[in-house]
Amino acid sequence: MKPNRIARCAQLAMLLEVSATPKPGNIDRDHNYPDTRFEHFLASSAGVYPVLEKAAKSRSGVGSLIRCAVIESNRWQDGGNTHFGAFILLIPLVMAAGRCTNKACLKAQVRQVVRETSVDDAVELYRAFSEAKVRVKPVDELGLGDASSINKIKEQGLTLFELMEIAESYDMIANEWINGFERTFECAASIRDKVVEYGINDAVVITFMEFLSSNNDTFIQTKFDSKKAEEVSMRAKRILQKGDINVIRNDIRSFDEELLKEGVNPGSSADIIIAGLFISLFEGMKF
Amino acid sequence: MKPNRIARCAQLAMLLEVSATPKPGNIDRDHNYPDTRFEHFLASSAGVYPVLEKAAKSRSGVGSLIRCAVIESNRWQDGGNTHFGAFILLIPLVMAAGRCTNKACLKAQVRQVVRETSVDDAVELYRAFSEAKVRVKPVDELGLGDASSINKIKEQGLTLFELMEIAESYDMIANEWINGFERTFECAASIRDKVVEYGINDAVVITFMEFLSSNNDTFIQTKFDSKKAEEVSMRAKRILQKGDINVIRNDIRSFDEELLKEGVNPGSSADIIIAGLFISLFEGMKF
Repeated sequence: MKPNRIARCAQLAMLLEVSATPKPGNIDRDHNYPDTRFEHFLASSAGVYPVLEKAAKSRSGVGSLIRCAVIESNRWQDGGNTHFGAFILLIPLVMAAGRCTNKACLKAQVRQVVRETSVDDAVELYRAFSEAKVRVKPVDELGLGDASSINKIKEQGLTLFELMEIAESYDMIANEWINGFERTFECAASIRDKVVEYGINDAVVITFMEFLSSNNDTFIQTKFDSKKAEEVSMRAKRILQKGDINVIRNDIRSFDEELLKEGVNPGSSADIIIAGLFISLFEGMKF
Repeated sequence: MKPNRIARCAQLAMLLEVSATPKPGNIDRDHNYPDTRFEHFLASSAGVYPVLEKAAKSRSGVGSLIRCAVIESNRWQDGGNTHFGAFILLIPLVMAAGRCTNKACLKAQVRQVVRETSVDDAVELYRAFSEAKVRVKPVDELGLGDASSINKIKEQGLTLFELMEIAESYDMIANEWINGFERTFECAASIRDKVVEYGINDAVVITFMEFLSSNNDTFIQTKFDSKKAEEVSMRAKRILQKGDINVIRNDIRSFDEELLKEGVNPGSSADIIIAGLFISLFEGMKF
């Protein structure tokens, strides 16, 4: 597939994810946070295009591509962090797509892309974190925005894959890196299976709810604590048990309003949905 | 400005326009038509990116670029005509932006781009019309989708600019071509002037309502008749007279519901708003 086609799939994935509504706690076409709005996500999605296209042509440089994506995203909007976590998943997936000779080999290729990352990639990601002031749990004693951390990474010769290994147990995005993007591919399959019956909006909403119900969101865990993340999962689970999307839509809406009011946004789950949408579009999903 | 920066402004203009709500009669983030949905507009906006970037680098070929844009837009979604009229305005504007050495010269450059169009450009646009099966009033005896029309254009040596001159009196998009994109630049100024006070969504909504109130929409005129287009304008005018956006929001919503129910969509006005948004983003508008 041509690099510009891969990049457009990634961009469309970002647009479809942020548009899907209601998506409890997260920004969507009908819900904003005071300083970050739906339109900031649109601007970030448009702004990052050249980096996505570059990634589809690149054989290496995951870390610096993620950093470029963050810089470009921030240049096009003032709403703060919109897609940082998404880029950590999307960039290696887009690079892997660029290597694929057929659509079925994406899974094998992305495993390879992340395993091939270098110490430089780790340093670049750390730079991106500190530049973007993203809320994230520091890996071990490697404090973020701390110049000495970058020196430590270099001294210890930690690759980006190895950094992700350290974070794997408590960070769902790092976990995807280590475990072959398994949950991301599951999300892709779920969206693709639901799109004909439910349409693209509801396919994303149901997949998001299902994902939330069986995973504690890292972003909530970092912003609040693991109890809060567990509560949110349990709540999603109970709503899903009540019936199909048309039965539970109002429950999802109330859940959404509550989370938004408390500022509880399952941002990492949204990142995985974006990556899942990319896979399903890359594999040919129509809607 | 770099071609990829110009293309991203054009793409973001498309995204911001379709998202703005409520926009009486047209698709927006909260309103769909049965066969054409908000997500089709997102897919068209993502899909057309490479053509926009190519246009920003092109010195000629307006007609074939518009045709490519339509083909690419349709390749990425099955919702039918989403952005045809918008491309007729955006493509020459994007080409003009690519020629600009400073942001102030866009108006002069776009006048030149349209005046330089050729017979080939006219033929390519006619081909695009017939391929896309867009609802449009044929120019004089030049029937659309009619191979003999293309021969007539060639025989008479009509350039695309000259075709637009024939249509100028009854088609607001053709009128923009002939009159230096005057109303489009007015829309750009209006959006830019309102964005700080009202935010980007409402800046677009108010500008759309004001535009509608003083122009009979070509798309409505072609689909219904000029009486209907006039009615819609009068209705928009009366609503605007009641007060500011926060006072009239519910009136705009009711107006929207009514037009959607009747299938009365002021599509040409939306096209001009997209082009206006492009100009304001190109000129540096932040939101």
